Amino acid sequence: MTTIAIVGSGIAGLHLGLHLRKQDLDVTIYTNRTGEEVANGPVMNSVAHMHVTRAIEEELGINHWVGEDYEYIRHYHYNGWGEDREYFGDFTKPSAVVDYRIMLPKLMQDFEERGGRFVYGTLFREDVDALTDEYDLVVVSAGKGDISAIFPKRPELSPFSAPARKLAVGFWHGVERLEPNGVGVNVVPGVGELLAIPMWSFSGKVMALLFESVPGGPQEVLTDQKYADDPAAYREKTLEILREYYPPMYARINEDEFRLQGEKDILQGAFPPAMRQDFVELPNGKFLLALGDIHMTVDPVQAQGANSAAYSAKVIADAIAEDKVFDRRFMEKVARRRAERLEAATNWINTIIGPPAEQIPELFSAMVHNRELADRFTENFNNPIGQMDLLGSTERVRAAIEATKSTVNA
Amino acid sequence: MTTIAIVGSGIAGLHLGLHLRKQDLDVTIYTNRTGEEVANGPVMNSVAHMHVTRAIEEELGINHWVGEDYEYIRHYHYNGWGEDREYFGDFTKPSAVVDYRIMLPKLMQDFEERGGRFVYGTLFREDVDALTDEYDLVVVSAGKGDISAIFPKRPELSPFSAPARKLAVGFWHGVERLEPNGVGVNVVPGVGELLAIPMWSFSGKVMALLFESVPGGPQEVLTDQKYADDPAAYREKTLEILREYYPPMYARINEDEFRLQGEKDILQGAFPPAMRQDFVELPNGKFLLALGDIHMTVDPVQAQGANSAAYSAKVIADAIAEDKVFDRRFMEKVARRRAERLEAATNWINTIIGPPAEQIPELFSAMVHNRELADRFTENFNNPIGQMDLLGSTERVRAAIEATKSTVNA
Repeated sequence: MTTIAIVGSGIAGLHLGLHLRKQDLDVTIYTNRTGEEVANGPVMNSVAHMHVTRAIEEELGINHWVGEDYEYIRHYHYNGWGEDREYFGDFTKPSAVVDYRIMLPKLMQDFEERGGRFVYGTLFREDVDALTDEYDLVVVSAGKGDISAIFPKRPELSPFSAPARKLAVGFWHGVERLEPNGVGVNVVPGVGELLAIPMWSFSGKVMALLFESVPGGPQEVLTDQKYADDPAAYREKTLEILREYYPPMYARINEDEFRLQGEKDILQGAFPPAMRQDFVELPNGKFLLALGDIHMTVDPVQAQGANSAAYSAKVIADAIAEDKVFDRRFMEKVARRRAERLEAATNWINTIIGPPAEQIPELFSAMVHNRELADRFTENFNNPIGQMDLLGSTERVRAAIEATKSTVNA
Repeated sequence: MTTIAIVGSGIAGLHLGLHLRKQDLDVTIYTNRTGEEVANGPVMNSVAHMHVTRAIEEELGINHWVGEDYEYIRHYHYNGWGEDREYFGDFTKPSAVVDYRIMLPKLMQDFEERGGRFVYGTLFREDVDALTDEYDLVVVSAGKGDISAIFPKRPELSPFSAPARKLAVGFWHGVERLEPNGVGVNVVPGVGELLAIPMWSFSGKVMALLFESVPGGPQEVLTDQKYADDPAAYREKTLEILREYYPPMYARINEDEFRLQGEKDILQGAFPPAMRQDFVELPNGKFLLALGDIHMTVDPVQAQGANSAAYSAKVIADAIAEDKVFDRRFMEKVARRRAERLEAATNWINTIIGPPAEQIPELFSAMVHNRELADRFTENFNNPIGQMDLLGSTERVRAAIEATKSTVNA
């Protein structure tokens, strides 16, 4: 009987665990938090699951959040330059956004009900290595400290030594949802981005405001000034920035109702994105395989972290379904099969948040009057490879503009 | 309008051309031979199209050879060692073998009828380079002399500096077909291999006897002694070798009827297998993309040349369907998408014909009494990745034997 250990019970580890239980394999997830602890903890992120991810979840029987409370179909764009600044792009099928403090405990329960096993506790590097003596395969999908350093960075895919954006995301009441429901994608050069994400959380509908702030710019205060130090001042500062830089968002605020859902509903921080090696070989000849954030940490601005992790978990599960010899060949197979999509996601996001790439404002300006282009950019949140095909170079952006010019509205 | 030139009208170029006509693109194939010249020429090969290739051909509407005259479903094995030497493995769906002098002219006609264009003539390297000024994309799928050297060898995937086998294939009358129809897979250490392939040719059913001879061994005479010099002596030598080394094959010979279909129906030669780079960039900033034999030349012993070429053509066609900017990103996309399967085919064949790999006789010995293993080896002619999973190392062969031991017949 093939035995598999997964370190970490984030979306990556849970997806993989559920795939493998579907294959009736012996799976143990090591985690430092119970579902109850997750539910009672702070905001984890504000990530939407794109329809390609939801299709995987449908297949796994864990697509529990279907319906208008959870779903959205549109990106409402605002460019902070030019004459006409507002436009939108549509997905072909809805994405969904559910607070991970609701989603993960439910998936943990699914995993246990389907015969998966949890072992609770904190692991150190030596514990992870020791698991390889006990299990046929060990997949590492979470870990801090020395565990996060198991997999060396790949410098050519990790261009940032410092964070390219400072982050702050809070779950707010008092921000209007639009019809049809959608995510606000606001881009203001020199300031940063603001994503307004219609989230389902403990109190029902809230709006996740994810401020992505250029370091040194006027918006970084929302990361640097800790919310808990002075909640009222933080709220005022948030309103001030909305008013100043994001007029279409500010117009959706009801100031009487504008408040955080709760004190745990804000997350502030920053990290440099990194892509790491897929696996390492240990002195005993066994391997550790990386999955999820520990393999690829991306800035959240294009919502690719969880979606990439779900893809990666499926690649690993499919590889295990066809091959249960966990040697270097197996590891290289996984690395190769997920490389194109994951590297495309990384390169796409780094093109958006990195040193100004001339084709990005050119694309965003063109989208204002070009629905076909805006729809393609939007739908490509399901398809990072297609997104890099679209925006990977000036030549590519111009080819896409040329190919769609007959559809441009007046 | 996207314009594409393909150099070469072998199976690779024709498949690609037909895919692209299905996409309604402007496609021109450059070739040095008309369909009539191909039909009147010498034997080209003895390759079977596996069911994965036939599925592509079905999709393209060119699967013209369906039915028992063309199809086989079984590998009849003979090991030249051990007590029990004969066994068989089955495919899940039939392969087909049609003389390329019948197949290629028909596909050339299909291509023209569907709006493809041929330009006849001999190209030199400078002509191929010049095509990049005229077409958006140039794919090179054939060529001799300086054209064959366009794409540098990849040394790590091209381990042979000299041929590992000397080859001779003739289309013979007087060799019995078995029921169900199948290919004879005969392996005799120190001598080589003999594949007996039930071919459909101009006179109907013939048997392609493909002698794969170890250089310096007793069988290489079938390559070194030119048939045309003394046809009767060559026939005698062939019978002598069949009698001496391949008793189950010899038992199927009717000596009264044993003769070549015709004088052009024999091909003798040898080449070192090689895997070459996927593309090269030219001084004008455009690229040449490799397809088929010019990209990957494999020994014919495992019938992977044409099947790999058909796969590769489909990868290129699919990439073009989604992306018509033919820059380095496009070339790398194609290279990456076909790498796993093509490298698996190359490595599989090189493991079979290379310096003795201990796991190969171990696998072949185990298959004698293990139908599940023999079926898996057979079906994997459709799936080189699975074949490398099976036989890539001693550990892997032993894992497969262990996993199937409960099914072994007494």
